[in-house]
Amino acid sequence: MALVAEIIAVGTELLLGNTANTDAQDVSQVLSELGIHCYFHTTVGDNDGRVKQAIEIAKGRADIIITTGGLGPTYDDMTKQTVCEAFHTPLVLHEPSWQRIVDYFKKINRPLTNNNRQQAMLPEGCTIMQNDWGTAPGCAFEADGKHILMLPGPPHECRAMLKNCAMPYLAKLCGQTIVSRKVKIFGMGESQVEDLVADYIKNAANPTIAPYAKDGECFLRVTASAENHDTAFAITEPAVKRLQEILGDVVYGIDVETLEEVVLELLKKHGKTLAVAESCTGGMLASRITSLSGSSQVFLGGAVTYTNKMKNVLLGVPLELLKKHGAVSRPVAEEMARGICTVTGADFGIGITGLAGPQGDGSDNPVGTVHIALFERQTGEISHIEGVFGDERRRIRTMSSSTALNMLRKKLTI
Amino acid sequence: MALVAEIIAVGTELLLGNTANTDAQDVSQVLSELGIHCYFHTTVGDNDGRVKQAIEIAKGRADIIITTGGLGPTYDDMTKQTVCEAFHTPLVLHEPSWQRIVDYFKKINRPLTNNNRQQAMLPEGCTIMQNDWGTAPGCAFEADGKHILMLPGPPHECRAMLKNCAMPYLAKLCGQTIVSRKVKIFGMGESQVEDLVADYIKNAANPTIAPYAKDGECFLRVTASAENHDTAFAITEPAVKRLQEILGDVVYGIDVETLEEVVLELLKKHGKTLAVAESCTGGMLASRITSLSGSSQVFLGGAVTYTNKMKNVLLGVPLELLKKHGAVSRPVAEEMARGICTVTGADFGIGITGLAGPQGDGSDNPVGTVHIALFERQTGEISHIEGVFGDERRRIRTMSSSTALNMLRKKLTI
Repeated sequence: MALVAEIIAVGTELLLGNTANTDAQDVSQVLSELGIHCYFHTTVGDNDGRVKQAIEIAKGRADIIITTGGLGPTYDDMTKQTVCEAFHTPLVLHEPSWQRIVDYFKKINRPLTNNNRQQAMLPEGCTIMQNDWGTAPGCAFEADGKHILMLPGPPHECRAMLKNCAMPYLAKLCGQTIVSRKVKIFGMGESQVEDLVADYIKNAANPTIAPYAKDGECFLRVTASAENHDTAFAITEPAVKRLQEILGDVVYGIDVETLEEVVLELLKKHGKTLAVAESCTGGMLASRITSLSGSSQVFLGGAVTYTNKMKNVLLGVPLELLKKHGAVSRPVAEEMARGICTVTGADFGIGITGLAGPQGDGSDNPVGTVHIALFERQTGEISHIEGVFGDERRRIRTMSSSTALNMLRKKLTI
Repeated sequence: MALVAEIIAVGTELLLGNTANTDAQDVSQVLSELGIHCYFHTTVGDNDGRVKQAIEIAKGRADIIITTGGLGPTYDDMTKQTVCEAFHTPLVLHEPSWQRIVDYFKKINRPLTNNNRQQAMLPEGCTIMQNDWGTAPGCAFEADGKHILMLPGPPHECRAMLKNCAMPYLAKLCGQTIVSRKVKIFGMGESQVEDLVADYIKNAANPTIAPYAKDGECFLRVTASAENHDTAFAITEPAVKRLQEILGDVVYGIDVETLEEVVLELLKKHGKTLAVAESCTGGMLASRITSLSGSSQVFLGGAVTYTNKMKNVLLGVPLELLKKHGAVSRPVAEEMARGICTVTGADFGIGITGLAGPQGDGSDNPVGTVHIALFERQTGEISHIEGVFGDERRRIRTMSSSTALNMLRKKLTI
């Protein structure tokens, strides 16, 4: 008999429409992978009586109740109190969690106020889920024949704790081990990917295969269940291989998170260094690379050149070239890539120039036009891509930096 | 008496975690603006019995029920049937809607299948909401003393119909308007903010005041309801002013979104330009600024100098200085700020150097140590902040770039 779970998101900001309930989506994906049914999501505000009402309804129709949000230090964070009342379980101070909070405030040099203590009050006898991504710990406990899990609301905390704490806990309840793999794709849309793998996906039962799309990328999730990890992993292997065969080199990695992570590893492997020159992406490419620890081993730096003068002064792009072709042009992207290599002595240089909008530059280039160049110092080789990435600023910048990373990835995997 | 609405999203894809329930967010924003309370969102799959259960529960606690999704032509689109059964209202063919569907299929040159007829079956006596963004019309009707609105699921259709059809319909139902303001804060933690304003918040009824935290920042939301917008706004004014008085200059803006937005406006107002030199933030500060359209008016560019050599070559930081004090030091941050001003000719230069971790640099500096300097070219004034921002790379980088923006904000508001 498959278990049934229900998700209750607590937070008035969700009911006011300030944020979308992405926690419910993240929890649902985990439940789905584990083969746990989920028939309802409920969202409720920071209100005692209504949180209680939502819990009572869920109690009547689910084996597992998972709450997100309302674990913080302020008076309107009431999830634990209300859940514990509904399940007749007392809250007690958990000393190690309290100590972690005290230490944390010491470290970030902020005064600890009395209401922070509330975050270390946890249901008696619960399994603590230590929060390494924020201050409020999560927890899980059993009462009245139900399993209750409480996770923090901030999406990055919730996501991290789901993976590291809640998923293993839930897997134990299912008596099964789940292995979930990711086939990461850049350079092909979700519907085209789905078209290509449709026949193979359709009959998949164990492993199951499902497509997801996000930020101009997509990925296939391959999930297998078995009595132990090794067996489950072995079940995923042929599927992962087959998907790679079908999709070819748009697959940029297996079980990785980001393009920048793959590129960083490739640079390290080949002992090569990188520097970047950015116009329309305005530092986003450098920021994505340097978000990874260890990037300083291979990333030398970059220039954000938002004006013609900066392109000339920092990168040596000739002013006549800028005048002749316009800042958003292939020759300028190429000179930017060459220039940053010369200035830094890096092995690879990337140049990006484009129109992130919403206004154009008075030329014939439509908003979203981007020129990306990759220069290799040792060989003198230069490659170029011109893209038109729609008219939404965020998407144009993301797609431009991703496309640049993907060019370098392909270069380094040949 | 304010009306109470409840949102029911219908779609198994939401329960599987394939998509986030952004429709609920969009509907909630509209309700919030109109001053209609919303206490619950429910998400339910394409299942007859469970949709019915969700409707029955909503019927017991709301005046208005708004459904999204399940209006399409396929067998698993069942919202209308189930809602109409629950409200004892028959579905009848709406000829004009049927004609629109017939015409649409003619236009896109696709065969019309029989199940498309289902999309033109609508509750008897309902108000039709014509869908100019897709094929399935929405509708609204009254039964058993409740108002029921049904909107299509695809987010762009739902959003367009909300604005054009549902919002005018709902506005008529209520004679009240809500105004919601944001008091944005940087440089003080959520719990400390709450401590300071606790007495003032506690007794607030109209307006209500609630704290939120995100990415090292927090804000207070002040929400008032009244018979019209101007009256509601006037009710928020004394509260907003009082909160500013209590909190002082950690309040960086009212009804704004981000620090970078405030800084950008201040630079424009004063006719000043900015350039940045980043080490540990690795382009994040430049990327935050350039994420805003119009930033090119005041932002000249920046340098991401991840090595000593880059700091020397691009910014002219003397190698002896780097050797003597180490890269993570006050003198180096100051030279970076000066250097980027000299190179670019900007009015203000920011220099950031620090340890984003997880590894240290062999010095006594703990991970999370960051030196930030702000240089003003015209006066030659330089200011400096040393921060220790914990040990999480993402937080260190976010806090460093926010702190830099906040220094410039304070400089420009004196």
